[in-house]
Amino acid sequence: MPFYTLNKDMPTITANFRHLIAPQLCSVNELFARELASDLSNVNSLITHVSEFRGKMLRPTLVLLSGLAAAKDAGGGAPLTSQHITIATVIEMVHVATLVHDDVLDDAKIRRNGSTINYLHGNEAAVLLGGYLVSHAYHLCSTLDSQDASRLIAHTTNLVCEGELIQNFNRNNWTLDEKTYYFIIDRKTAALTAICCRLGAMTSTRNPTHIESLATYGQKIGLAFQIVDDLLDICGNQQTVGKSLGTDIEKGKLTLPMIHFLQHAPSRNRNLLIDLLESDAPDRTTRVRQLIAPSDSIAYAQSEAERLVNESIAALQPLPPSEAREALIQTAHYVTERDK
Amino acid sequence: MPFYTLNKDMPTITANFRHLIAPQLCSVNELFARELASDLSNVNSLITHVSEFRGKMLRPTLVLLSGLAAAKDAGGGAPLTSQHITIATVIEMVHVATLVHDDVLDDAKIRRNGSTINYLHGNEAAVLLGGYLVSHAYHLCSTLDSQDASRLIAHTTNLVCEGELIQNFNRNNWTLDEKTYYFIIDRKTAALTAICCRLGAMTSTRNPTHIESLATYGQKIGLAFQIVDDLLDICGNQQTVGKSLGTDIEKGKLTLPMIHFLQHAPSRNRNLLIDLLESDAPDRTTRVRQLIAPSDSIAYAQSEAERLVNESIAALQPLPPSEAREALIQTAHYVTERDK
Repeated sequence: MPFYTLNKDMPTITANFRHLIAPQLCSVNELFARELASDLSNVNSLITHVSEFRGKMLRPTLVLLSGLAAAKDAGGGAPLTSQHITIATVIEMVHVATLVHDDVLDDAKIRRNGSTINYLHGNEAAVLLGGYLVSHAYHLCSTLDSQDASRLIAHTTNLVCEGELIQNFNRNNWTLDEKTYYFIIDRKTAALTAICCRLGAMTSTRNPTHIESLATYGQKIGLAFQIVDDLLDICGNQQTVGKSLGTDIEKGKLTLPMIHFLQHAPSRNRNLLIDLLESDAPDRTTRVRQLIAPSDSIAYAQSEAERLVNESIAALQPLPPSEAREALIQTAHYVTERDK
Repeated sequence: MPFYTLNKDMPTITANFRHLIAPQLCSVNELFARELASDLSNVNSLITHVSEFRGKMLRPTLVLLSGLAAAKDAGGGAPLTSQHITIATVIEMVHVATLVHDDVLDDAKIRRNGSTINYLHGNEAAVLLGGYLVSHAYHLCSTLDSQDASRLIAHTTNLVCEGELIQNFNRNNWTLDEKTYYFIIDRKTAALTAICCRLGAMTSTRNPTHIESLATYGQKIGLAFQIVDDLLDICGNQQTVGKSLGTDIEKGKLTLPMIHFLQHAPSRNRNLLIDLLESDAPDRTTRVRQLIAPSDSIAYAQSEAERLVNESIAALQPLPPSEAREALIQTAHYVTERDK
């Protein structure tokens, strides 16, 4: 049984490249805290708590590196601007809001080895805090120079909500197919990573080929990231991953390994999986994980994630060589390697 | 025991004034439907369902009438523009989102004499649908001519979320005072009605006195509206009001009549109220309602609502006389009269 683990201290990019965006990541942190600060101490303590959910800063990293990679093309000299930092902060805020709401939907207790907001303060506080984060994200968005970025970000959150709604409609649907699975994760996860790269690029260049290259890169690594997340839910070790696992199974959400298993495993095992998914036995999550973890379906999902990482890297090909482009390639590898 | 009832077919403004904004209210309905339409039939059926929660269209009415009342001042000829309609639609969408989320927080089953989304489809679907509505509201906002309206609307939703969070922190706090109650409802309800009037006015005029007059009017009727809503929760008839009542009691949310009762009723009755609020007796909600409904605390809250309605009307004084100003005065009276 391959154990997927996540070293929470492993940065998205290694020290070689961190200098490229380190001051800007600091600025993102500062702006994040400044925008969310409230006069109300109760609200602030919730904000401090959710701020600890952030570790990898994958999405701000994507905005900033895409901005650099595209600026290189635009003449090499254009530095990252305050617009890049605002966009990175807005998207990080939206992302944290989705984590808070996801934990409510998943009844999750643990996130980054700490307690979730819903576990500590109840579902109501978590729903409201998610709303507070989203509201402040749009508030910050309205400080940008143009409405274009706001419109693209709001369009993306429309897609994220649609993806989550379709996922919810398909709970306990054991005939869910791969096409619908990809449709869901393209919206709920990849739309946000794609817009990171698209907006990072658009803020630095008008070259449409390079903007589309980076957007495709962002979309593909979003898909790969979600597949790996789904693998961790089945094969991960809760302590090393640092969040509640098995929630897909508990909530009747079929993911790629389960979909593959239900189509390719021996019929006896397929029937057993459905029986377990439909049972209310207290150990059903453990038994589902034990059933799928040694199967070919894990290797299949892993190969899909690797294919998408390779496609994301290939999408960067039209961009001129730069340290930022190298860092994006490393980030893509990190997505699948974070868990071995 | 005075019974508060709400005739759901009673319009916010009577036929005398409806012609002033009837075509624009139609446009708001069209834009609302167009913005929210999805390619996904499951999503559309949820949208159709929540659209039925809308009846009075109080908030779009406030935007449009404020726009007209301020345009009168600006020369009398300026008609309502597409900007007014977009703002009215955005705020209505935010409002419907808060209804959907409130029903989750209140475990409410009934809204406008139909089932709530959470009752029909579960809390998860309701949380996600609320997010979908908010996201589309901001998406629509980004089509406005300037970022200023977006920024003010997002600032308002920040306040709404804060108000809801503070209310949540104060659940089962039997020492909650009037000042904190007003602090909460000023954010969770009055901020949104105030921004309706402020933005309606700002889109028609630059006269700061008239903009502030209308914003104050909107804030005061929002406060009055919330007090009446809180009265209905205790004294209303569920069938005529058309939504789940007694939820404030069930969720341990002290409202103005309860706060007054805990400070002014004979000590025997005060202790009885706290005992009931803390008990888990199945009939505790009915018994709390029976305890408070005949008390002076109802009349006190009612007089507070009437005071605020009078203050809202007084705030309109600097505006030049117009049919729109008359309609706003009628709307203010409607807020307390809707329930007699």
